[in-house]
Amino acid sequence: METLFRVSASSRSTSVAGAIAGSVRDGNFVSLQAIGAGSVNQAVKAIAIARGYLAGEKIEIICVPEMVLLDMEGAERTAVRFHVGKADRGFPPAKAIPASIAPAAVPTLVPQGE
Amino acid sequence: METLFRVSASSRSTSVAGAIAGSVRDGNFVSLQAIGAGSVNQAVKAIAIARGYLAGEKIEIICVPEMVLLDMEGAERTAVRFHVGKADRGFPPAKAIPASIAPAAVPTLVPQGE
Repeated sequence: METLFRVSASSRSTSVAGAIAGSVRDGNFVSLQAIGAGSVNQAVKAIAIARGYLAGEKIEIICVPEMVLLDMEGAERTAVRFHVGKADRGFPPAKAIPASIAPAAVPTLVPQGE
Repeated sequence: METLFRVSASSRSTSVAGAIAGSVRDGNFVSLQAIGAGSVNQAVKAIAIARGYLAGEKIEIICVPEMVLLDMEGAERTAVRFHVGKADRGFPPAKAIPASIAPAAVPTLVPQGE
């Protein structure tokens, strides 16, 4: 079972974290949907906090981010969807990102020291 | 081996994605460090795009977000660090989040339908 939560920029990350921890503890997957940088940031913080909540119970959680195109009353919006679950569970296979979101890139980036 | 990349709000997500894909393909871990919502958003997009790049090679990547406190010339800043690697590799155990970042929460959140 995968429960979808919509996360906004004003979502409390600790509350979202509690919801994630509860679902994952019960063996379920959680899907967090975020539109915009502020929402994505809250979702990421919530996952990191949930990870801390569950660490004491020896439950490891991982996440897989995916970009999805949403039809919002006729307008196309790009959202990030985070699939979150226990580390020892399988995840759905990755889908290719639509070219409209991720144009072909020339991968060049110089690693930086800490 | 884990290579650290610093991601900023102006980083090209496709370039970062290429760097992630290259490292993970070689069997290494990548750590993306982001400060602020715009940077976190770019890092997440990069991971999602890298996932698409590697999907054709049957390589699954996952990520584990962690909050870290950085000392930036005397000022304390909270950063998000994403540990990225192949799905079949182990990850370092989660650390408890410092109380200053994640105060105790009462986990209440009502799941929303799609």
